[in-house]
Formats: sequence, C-alpha cells, structure tokens
Amino acid sequence: MPGSRPTVRTERLWADIMQLAAFTEPDRPYTRRAFTEVYQAGRRWLAARMQEAGLAVRVDAGGNLIGRWEGTEPGRSPLMLGSHTDTVLDGGRFDGVAGVLGALEAVRALREAGVRLRHPVEVVDFLAEEPSDYGPSCIGSLALTGGLAPEMLAEVNPAGETLAEGIRRMGGEPRSLSAPLRRPGDVAAYVELHIEQGPVLEQRGVPIGLVTAIASMEWHSVTLEGQPGHAGTTPMELRRDALAAAAEVILAVERTGRELATGGHCVATTGRLLIEPNNVNVVPGKAELTVDVRSHDPRRLAQAWADIRTAIEGISQTRGVRWTSRCLGRAEGAAADPQVMEALEVAAHELGYPVLHLASGAGHDAMHLARIAPMGMLFIPCRGGLSHCPEEWSSPDDVARGTQVLAVALQYLDRILP
Amino acid sequence: MPGSRPTVRTERLWADIMQLAAFTEPDRPYTRRAFTEVYQAGRRWLAARMQEAGLAVRVDAGGNLIGRWEGTEPGRSPLMLGSHTDTVLDGGRFDGVAGVLGALEAVRALREAGVRLRHPVEVVDFLAEEPSDYGPSCIGSLALTGGLAPEMLAEVNPAGETLAEGIRRMGGEPRSLSAPLRRPGDVAAYVELHIEQGPVLEQRGVPIGLVTAIASMEWHSVTLEGQPGHAGTTPMELRRDALAAAAEVILAVERTGRELATGGHCVATTGRLLIEPNNVNVVPGKAELTVDVRSHDPRRLAQAWADIRTAIEGISQTRGVRWTSRCLGRAEGAAADPQVMEALEVAAHELGYPVLHLASGAGHDAMHLARIAPMGMLFIPCRGGLSHCPEEWSSPDDVARGTQVLAVALQYLDRILP
Repeated sequence: MPGSRPTVRTERLWADIMQLAAFTEPDRPYTRRAFTEVYQAGRRWLAARMQEAGLAVRVDAGGNLIGRWEGTEPGRSPLMLGSHTDTVLDGGRFDGVAGVLGALEAVRALREAGVRLRHPVEVVDFLAEEPSDYGPSCIGSLALTGGLAPEMLAEVNPAGETLAEGIRRMGGEPRSLSAPLRRPGDVAAYVELHIEQGPVLEQRGVPIGLVTAIASMEWHSVTLEGQPGHAGTTPMELRRDALAAAAEVILAVERTGRELATGGHCVATTGRLLIEPNNVNVVPGKAELTVDVRSHDPRRLAQAWADIRTAIEGISQTRGVRWTSRCLGRAEGAAADPQVMEALEVAAHELGYPVLHLASGAGHDAMHLARIAPMGMLFIPCRGGLSHCPEEWSSPDDVARGTQVLAVALQYLDRILP
Repeated sequence: MPGSRPTVRTERLWADIMQLAAFTEPDRPYTRRAFTEVYQAGRRWLAARMQEAGLAVRVDAGGNLIGRWEGTEPGRSPLMLGSHTDTVLDGGRFDGVAGVLGALEAVRALREAGVRLRHPVEVVDFLAEEPSDYGPSCIGSLALTGGLAPEMLAEVNPAGETLAEGIRRMGGEPRSLSAPLRRPGDVAAYVELHIEQGPVLEQRGVPIGLVTAIASMEWHSVTLEGQPGHAGTTPMELRRDALAAAAEVILAVERTGRELATGGHCVATTGRLLIEPNNVNVVPGKAELTVDVRSHDPRRLAQAWADIRTAIEGISQTRGVRWTSRCLGRAEGAAADPQVMEALEVAAHELGYPVLHLASGAGHDAMHLARIAPMGMLFIPCRGGLSHCPEEWSSPDDVARGTQVLAVALQYLDRILP
C-alpha cells in the first residue's frame, strides 16, 4: 500500500514534549498539577497543536480535552488514544505526556502518509489522572465512563472549591455527569502509550512492553502494640518490642510478594512505617506500617493479604504484641483486550521491535476505559525505572518507537474492528 | 545492741515523696527539670526537711545540695548516700527522688534509734542527673568527681545561658570546678537507692536488687541506602528496599542482644527508625536507625557491636544496599564494690528480704562516684518496669524496704570501713 506506512518524526515529537514541559508551576520544575493556571495554559498550547494537526478540538462535560479526526465511514465509533498532561508535585516530563503527545504524533504521521481510516480517531487528554487536591484521581476517565459519583463531585479542595466547580473551571459541565459520557459500544477501542514507571524494559533491553493487565490493588494499615521500656533496664527476654515485631512483618510482606510473584504477577510493599516513642534508648511500644499489595489476578491478591495476615497473627502471638489492621483502599484492575494486544504486537513485529508482555502494577486511565471498550496499553522504557520525580526520563528514540507502534497498530485496528 | 535497730517510718517517707512530687512545672505533672524555679523550690523544701532531721545543710561548688550528720570520730571520710531530685519532661515521682528521700529517712531512722556512727554521713541531692538543656547529664556528680570539663561548663542552653552560669544560679561556684571537689579517699563509700526502671524485680517477686555493675553503653546511628521505586511497577526481584534491609538489621540487633545476654549481661535495641520517602506506594530508598548496646562487660559490649556490624555488612551485600554508621556516644560503666555489696546483702538478709543480683542497664550518679569511692547500688521494684513517665510507681512498702536495707547497711559499713 503506497503512502500507507506512517513515519513518526522524532524531533517534532521530542520538541512537543519539551515545550509542554516548559509549562510548570513557579520554582517547581516539571510540576503541572491539574486545575492550576499553568495546567490550563499547557492545555491551550496542546489544543493549538491539535488544531494545527487538523483535529477538531473540544472539551467534554468531564473536562477532557479531545482532538478528533473524522473517519471515512460515518457512524463508526472512534478509536480512542490518550493519557493525561497533569503531573504530581515535583513530577517528570513523560508520565502521561508521552501518551498524549505520542497519540497526537501518531495521527500526524498517519495523515502525512496519506492514510485515511474508516473509524474516527480521538486523541484525549484526560482531566486529572494524578491524585487531586479534591481527593479523587482519574477524574476525567471516571467522568467519561460514568464512574464519578455525586459524592465525589461534592468533595472540596483545601480552598473550599467543590470538584464540580473545578471541572466547570476546566471547561466541563458537571451537571451532565450523572450519566456516563460514553457507554459500551461508543468507543471502538482505547489504546494508551505510557512510560513503564518501572525498571524491567530497561534492564531487559526491550523497547516495547505490551501490558497484559492492570493490577488490582489493596492498601492496608497495620498497627502493632507491644510495651515501651527502657533500653538499658528491660532484659531481652522480657521485651514486647513493637519494632522488632514490625521488622518480622515487613519481611513477611516481602516474602509473600516474592512467593506469589512466582508463576504470576504480585508485588507487596511496606512503604510507610512510624514508631513510638522513636527514642534511641527506649524499646518501641508501638509501630504502624502500611501494606500495598497488587496483582493482575484477584485471587492471588486475596491470597497475598491472607498470607500476610496469617504471618502477622503468628508474629504477634510469639511476641505478645497486639495487632489491628484497617483497609485504606482498593482498586479493581482490568485485563487488556486480546485483539488490541494483538494489534500492538503485530505492529511491533512489523517494525522489528522486540516486545515483552508485562502487567502494569500502576493504575492508569486505561483501567476505567476498559469498562466500556476493548483496552490495550503500550509501555516504553524509562531510565532506572524512575517516575514521579524530576529525573524521570525516556529517550527521544524510546518515545518515537512507542509512537510508531501506536500509529501502525491504529491502522491494523481500523481494519479488524467493526 | 539495744537501740541499735533503726525503724524506717513508711508513712513519713511516703508523705515526703508525695510532697516533693507536688513541686511540678505548670500543667506538667511530675515534671521538675533541673535549673527551673520549681526545682529550686523543691530543693528549699528538701533543705528544710534535712535541717529538721538535724543535718547541716550546704550547697557545694558543683551545685549539689548536701545534708551532713557528723560522726563520732573526727577526721573520718563520710559515708555518702544520694541520688537526684530533678526529673525528665513528663517524668515520674520516684526516679532519683526515692534515693534522696530514702537516704534522709535512713538517717532519721538511725538517729531516732539512738545510733551513733563513727563516720559522718552525707545525704546528697546531685544537681541535674537527667539530660539537661545545656547538653550534659549527671552534672553534679561529674562536678564532684572532677569530670566536668571546661568545655562542658561553656555549653549554653536555648536561652543562651552557659552551664557555668546555671550552676552559679543553683548556688554553686563554677570557678572552683577546675579540680575535683572530692578525691579518692575523701568519701568512705557511696551508696545509692534507686527504682529499677525495669521489670525484673517485679516479675520475680523480689523486693531488693543488688547492682553488680552499671553497664557500659554505646549508641550508633546506621544509615542504609537502597533505591526508591514505585511499589506497583518495581518487581520484587529488582528491588533494593532500604526498609526490608533495615528490618533484617533490627532483627540482627535483637538476636545479638539475646545471644550475648546468655551467660552475662547484654541488651541491644533499635529505638529509633526513620525512612524515606515514607509513602504507602513507594519502595523505601533510605532508612536510618539507631543501635543502643549495653553490657557490664566491656569485651561483651565490643563483641555486640562487632557482631552487629558483621550482620549489617552481610545484609547490605545480599540486598545491594549501601550502609554507613557513626558513633553517637559512649559511656563507661562501673563495677560495684564487693564490700559495699556485701553490706547491702547482709542487711537484706538480716531483715529477711530476698535479693537478686542484677546489672544496671541505665546510667546513674553512682557511675561517676565509683571513680573516687567504693560504690554500691540498691534497686527497688517499680510497677511494670515503667520509668520516665507519669505512671512510674513504687509502692510505699517497696520504698520503705529499700530504705530499711540502706539504714542497716550503713551501720555495717560504718563498722567495717576505715
């Protein structure tokens, strides 16, 4: 098919990423939190880039910025590509941004190659994927798929503004959010390109990761109460040391994650620990720690927390320490659609890029889109696995390769999807 | 010997303890920190009690409040009894106070029984045994024994007052502190009664503890540096988790203390732990913890820290984590004098009180007095081993029994010592 092979222009794509990275909060390199002035300025810049590329730009009722390229066959549901342009505090230049600007570049490359698709294509910058000042994260993708409950819209930020008012300020129409903006069938497929935010692709030297599933997640807080005592006068055998008990729990969490990672996906982490009284010469009387467990297999996830609870119970009985736990939150994962995965794999193969199948341990807008559309995700390597920090980095070639796969996969999806 | 058996009056002693406990800082029950107004008021009350008991009262150059009962044979060095009346912030009513008021009651009981001793007896309230706002602790006992270096006298509190000025404010004469106030031979023996500050006597149901030695102590800070990472996207096998490494170190510290407590005295404690970034969903990149090791055997102490270092080195190599440590401080312990211990043991035996020999894991003024005089210490039980808190508690009978032993031991020491 002459003229049908799109060519991503690496320098243009890279220049876009660096230009958007210039929209940052004062003295906070790479911080562009949703709902801020600079976030809106960045989106105005992005809307202009979309218009230059020939897309029709609008903001939907959920505050999502959408650039649309019409297809040749009216009435077909759009192929949707997207991610987000907001960052965490002191974040990086690629998380979210690579997916939005990669999607835009893929469309530009297709159009420049003279390609016409049967389906419309929508490039979406979802509102506020990162945790927001109002509480929720993934606000735009939740709004799109009908997951933004009225009580979430009523949540307020520290300035006293409700999320509904915030969405209106971003150009949305919160009164229209009582029903989903898109329902099953309204979107032909959703594809998201994202940096891996982990070290696997870099360490294996593989340029493209095909996401099999986004993990389900649980967060728990565990409190251990022993007996504080003088470090000099409390003999070893009479201690009920809450920190020593916590140390055994931390290692049990790690062991559980390792065991359940065999033959499947699982990670288990103690990220937070506070002890009392936290003095050099006092045997700790109390320890409070968190457990973050994730797996793409809900049964494995349930097994992980059950195993950890059993371990804590044993440790606490042996040491004479009381324990309690409470769930801090859960998030349900999503599996990638086999057809969308196949499209991505075929595209990578055609382009000569090795791929690795891997589960996403982090949450993404794609998790919510999977409820209404066949979903697929594509990971690109990031240096040292670092993310959510100014050091976050993917090379121009890393981003271009992922974008090239996106463009070719779009052609393939356009052919096979109804 | 008619008239020679002293009888401690439990109610009087208890009333004294409760009266002194009423001298507390505003809204801080049982807080009477050295150098405060309320501390001075408490000492004026104590000086009046000493005078009522027939003692000659003075404050020495080190700010120590001393009540003296002359002996029958001029020229003999005094038998010294004492402890301290200052408390930590939010402390209790017995730490230090039981030793000072017990010593006063022992002298009263001896005088009321018509006893005359060959040696003078001095009841000493040492200045500022607890850590002070100027930095040092054991200020009065250091001053008495020549351990208060000029640079310590120049240390300032947050208000900008030097320790020298503070000592002068307490009635001392800092310019006289370039030489020891007492030298070897100047004190016939030093005996201190103190609450155990640990749970052993209570748990064993033994009313009197005979201290064999005050432990030598070391404090170290250990820093572990791994690699922070996203809890969802960093696979278990690629982690360099500083908290999991710290957990192994904490258990190695505990194991070392347990192993070296077999056949000797040793305690090892991690009391303080801080991690970074301390977020639920981030694999910790850094952990900083403390190690407090104590033993009455300096070789065992050195062994403990060497064993812990070896363990940390192994853990850090296995986990790919860097580690450093720095010494936060050391304190040299002291052995009890066999003759003084014998006097205390004979007294307890005469009174029908079971005794337990045990090492003191906490520091005391007695540690410094041991440099110039035969030293002995006597522990009484305290509820739950709790100390340095408002819940600190010894029963009226606990305190009276210890005081009775003190009084009878004094008679014994008076007979056997030159």
